[in-house]
Order: sequence, then structure tokens, then C-alpha cells
Amino acid sequence: MTTLQGQKTGFIGLGLMGKPMARNLANAGADLIVHNRSSASVDELVSEGMAAGGSPSGTAQGADIIIMMLPDTPTVEKILLGENGVLVGLKPGSLVIDMGTTKVPVTRAFAKAVEDKGCDYLDAPVSGGTIGAENATLTIMAGGTDAAFKRAHPILNVLGSRITHIGSAGTGQVAKAANQVIVGLNIGAVAEALTLAKHAGADPAKVREALAGGFADSRILEVHGQRMIDDTFMPGARATVQRKDMDQALELAAELGIELPATSLSRDLYDWLIENGGADLDHAALIKAIDRY
Amino acid sequence: MTTLQGQKTGFIGLGLMGKPMARNLANAGADLIVHNRSSASVDELVSEGMAAGGSPSGTAQGADIIIMMLPDTPTVEKILLGENGVLVGLKPGSLVIDMGTTKVPVTRAFAKAVEDKGCDYLDAPVSGGTIGAENATLTIMAGGTDAAFKRAHPILNVLGSRITHIGSAGTGQVAKAANQVIVGLNIGAVAEALTLAKHAGADPAKVREALAGGFADSRILEVHGQRMIDDTFMPGARATVQRKDMDQALELAAELGIELPATSLSRDLYDWLIENGGADLDHAALIKAIDRY
Repeated sequence: MTTLQGQKTGFIGLGLMGKPMARNLANAGADLIVHNRSSASVDELVSEGMAAGGSPSGTAQGADIIIMMLPDTPTVEKILLGENGVLVGLKPGSLVIDMGTTKVPVTRAFAKAVEDKGCDYLDAPVSGGTIGAENATLTIMAGGTDAAFKRAHPILNVLGSRITHIGSAGTGQVAKAANQVIVGLNIGAVAEALTLAKHAGADPAKVREALAGGFADSRILEVHGQRMIDDTFMPGARATVQRKDMDQALELAAELGIELPATSLSRDLYDWLIENGGADLDHAALIKAIDRY
Repeated sequence: MTTLQGQKTGFIGLGLMGKPMARNLANAGADLIVHNRSSASVDELVSEGMAAGGSPSGTAQGADIIIMMLPDTPTVEKILLGENGVLVGLKPGSLVIDMGTTKVPVTRAFAKAVEDKGCDYLDAPVSGGTIGAENATLTIMAGGTDAAFKRAHPILNVLGSRITHIGSAGTGQVAKAANQVIVGLNIGAVAEALTLAKHAGADPAKVREALAGGFADSRILEVHGQRMIDDTFMPGARATVQRKDMDQALELAAELGIELPATSLSRDLYDWLIENGGADLDHAALIKAIDRY
């Protein structure tokens, strides 16, 4: 507990993930100053004893470590570099941690902008969803200097159960992109396998059961396979978020001059799902884009 | 042990998988009569105390239960229905078990041909490779009547650690096809993710480590991901076998009038790998078909 005391921790972005993460930090002894676009979440956490930052710059001014848990790259850009943004209020020697899923090249630019102010930057995107955020069992993939990672570690250790320092700034986001590619493509793999089983007269539930423990087994077969069998697609992670992550991975690949043919196909299948009423369904609903012929 | 005694067990196909499986049955107390295309493996097992069937029909004549562990559908067809085939020697009341990966529609025809002779038929393909065969830890997916499954169970229980009765004849092969679709596509998923990571400046070994335990985790990430990182593709399972299995899945899908777009793309990538010198490499070498641009 003591490692989190003696320094103010700013937390910007109190959504489904951010709010329980801020609470976990407070419970672990962190002294929190919070900010969010809509004030309801701020009011709620202030009533629990946290301070309100009032704006991104105000939060940065009042904190030594600033965590951002925001929905997409444009929002991170605005919160970090915009008018009354974090950079405006940032004190020399502070640490900025981006825990959202942000594009890789701009992440490297954000790191440079923060370091130019005499501060540390760490990209530390997460996997594990709202359940992982609530239970502090997030998988955290970090990119940044050794010093930034070491400084962030006590905080990350409160929020997650598996924390890996990948390499320099941006590589946490690279690992997250790799994670999302595998998740999206493995959902597609399970979807094609269960669709084939159903049409060929085998009970998909029995097939899923038979495959557990073998080379076809995975968390996706276990969790998302069950959702497909139950035909129940309450998110979880929304199809639109999965598509955004596939788009970011493909954009990165294009910038690097490489092709990811299966990721490209999967993005097109998510496009179909979203255009046909599945935008707010769990990403496992991709099976609807397979089992439509 | 006693459950395997009092009945003769025929075993046809003593390859990398079949030979250790036959030995495991003998060690468990089964009374074995064996046959193989080339006689070296037969001689070896005869020297260990097993009997030689001399031909498929001779093996069937001398056995109550006949197991086939053969490389492909044409071979099963020849061994079962050909001149001096199993069907010629089959005694009424026998049980035939096909443990290879055989096409679904012909499996149903084979079951009918065997049942028309007053016998039981079970398709019981396996997953787990030579290591699973040697250690008796195979995953076994069975299709057939309840009576056929019940009768085969003591034998399957010796050979594997996870045995599931999917449904009627052919559904074991359907489950195996589903298994192979997931394995092939998840190999492709891990290949695209690690290729992206490498080109984007993140250490693929660190990325694999970071993803373990999260939603991207799988046996494929663990085992085949490591092979990709080590750039070591000693099979394991050969690319040609994986392509054959993808082809069989796609052929089945076409017969059912459904499309499996990612499986189709993956088969094309395996084609490229095989045409470019990768035929005898492990199926994880698919990353060479991704990381070539």
C-alpha cells in the first residue's frame, strides 16, 4: 500500500473500465484526483473521497502521475495536447500513462511531447475487459523507458495481474494490436468451425466440449464459443470496438508496408456485421457474418 | 486391464501414430493382431509378442474389434472396401473403429457398409500428434451409435485422455474438421500478430509472453507461437497434412452449401507455403506465407 502514498495520482476517463480502476487505486491507498467529460462519474467518486481535477490541465497540475483511460486515439490527442490539455498543466518530472488502445505512431509522438517537458511517458494498454478492470486482473502491456516502467509498476500492479514491459514507447500498443488481431481472428476461427459443425449435423456444444484441452483450445473457444452456442451476444466487447482495433492494426501494417490478409478479411466481416445490425453486439457475434449463406 | 482381454483387437496402420498406439493397447492387456503396408513395423511388433494379420481381411478375420489408423481417405477406402479388405474378412458382430481423419460423407457410407454386415462402426479421429499417441493423451472425437461408442470406450480410454461422443456416425469426423479449422486459422492469427509485432519494433517473444493468460492465449500461441519465434519448423504436423485437412473441411462446406471465407484464405496461404518449399515443415511455418511482403 505504502508505495502509492506520497504522490498524487490523476485519473482521466471514468468509463466502464476507468471508474473501477480508479476505485481499485483508491482502495490500495492512492491519493486520487479525477476528471471525466461528463461530471456524473466525477461527482460519484468525489463523494467517495477523491478530488476533482476540473479539467485535464487541472488534473495534471495537481498530480505527479497522470493516468488516461480513454476510448480512442482522437480523444487521447485532445485530452493530452488540446486546449486545457494535460500538457498545459504538466509539472516537470511527472509521469503520464496511457492505458487506452491508441495508435502506435501517434503514441510515439505523444511520448516525445511529454518527454520534451521533462516528464516520463508509458503506454500501458490493457486486455481483460470490465471484469478484469473490476477484479484488478487486467493483462497490461507496457512500452516506455525502464525508468518510466519502474515508476509505473506499483500502480500497474494494483490494476492488473499480469504486467509485461515489452520495450520502448509504442511497443505496449504494438502488443495490444497483436492481441486484438489474435482475438478477432480466433473468434472467426471458432465461428467457422462451429458453423461447419452445425450444418454437418454435429451438435456445436458437443464439438466445443470435445475440443477443450486439445490444440484447438483457447480462451476464445471457451468464452466466445459458448456465446455463439447460446446465441447470446450481450457485450463484453462491442463489435465496433473490435473493428476499430482491426482497423488500427491494418493501418499500422500499411504504414509498415506489410500485408495481413486474414486480419483484412476479418475486418470486412466485422463491417458486414456492423452494417447488418450487429454494431452493439459482442464481438463473438461475428458468427452471424459467417452463418448467413 | 481386464476389459481389453477376452477379445482379439486388430490394428491396421502402424505409422508414427499407430505403432505407439498399438503398443499402449498391448501394455494395457489387449490381445493384438496387426497389419501394415510395409512389413518392418509388423515384424517389430510381432517380435514384441503381437500376431501378424497378413492382410486387412486376415486381420479382420482374426479379430473382434478392428482399429484403422491410416493417413487419408483413399487409403481407408482401399483397406476397408478393397480386394482383401477388412469387409471381406469381417465376422458378424465385430466393431470397426476408424481413428484417422477421413472425409465425412464417405465415413457415413463406410458406417453403412459395415453395419450392413451386422457389425458396429465408430469414427474416432484424434488430436494430439505423435506425442499424444505415445503418452496416451490423445483427444478423441467419436461418432456412431451409443452401442458402438460403449463397446469402443475401454480401448479409447487406453489411447486417449479426453474422449467425447459427439453423435451419430460421421460426427467424430465433423468435430475433427472443426478442430483442424480452428488450429489452421489460429496459427494464421498468431502468425499475423507476431509479424506485425516484429515489423513494428516489438520483440515477438515479449509480445507472446505478454499475451499469455489473456483472451489471445491458446495452445497455438504457446506451442506454435514459440516455433515461429524460434524460426524452427521441424514437424510436428506437416503443412501438407494441415492443407489436406483444410481442403476436406472446405469440400464438406461446399457439399453443405456454406462458405468458410477464412478457411478458404488459409488454405490458399498453405498452398503458397507448400509451393515455396514448405511442404515438409511444421504447419506453424505458415508465418512464412505472411511475412513475405
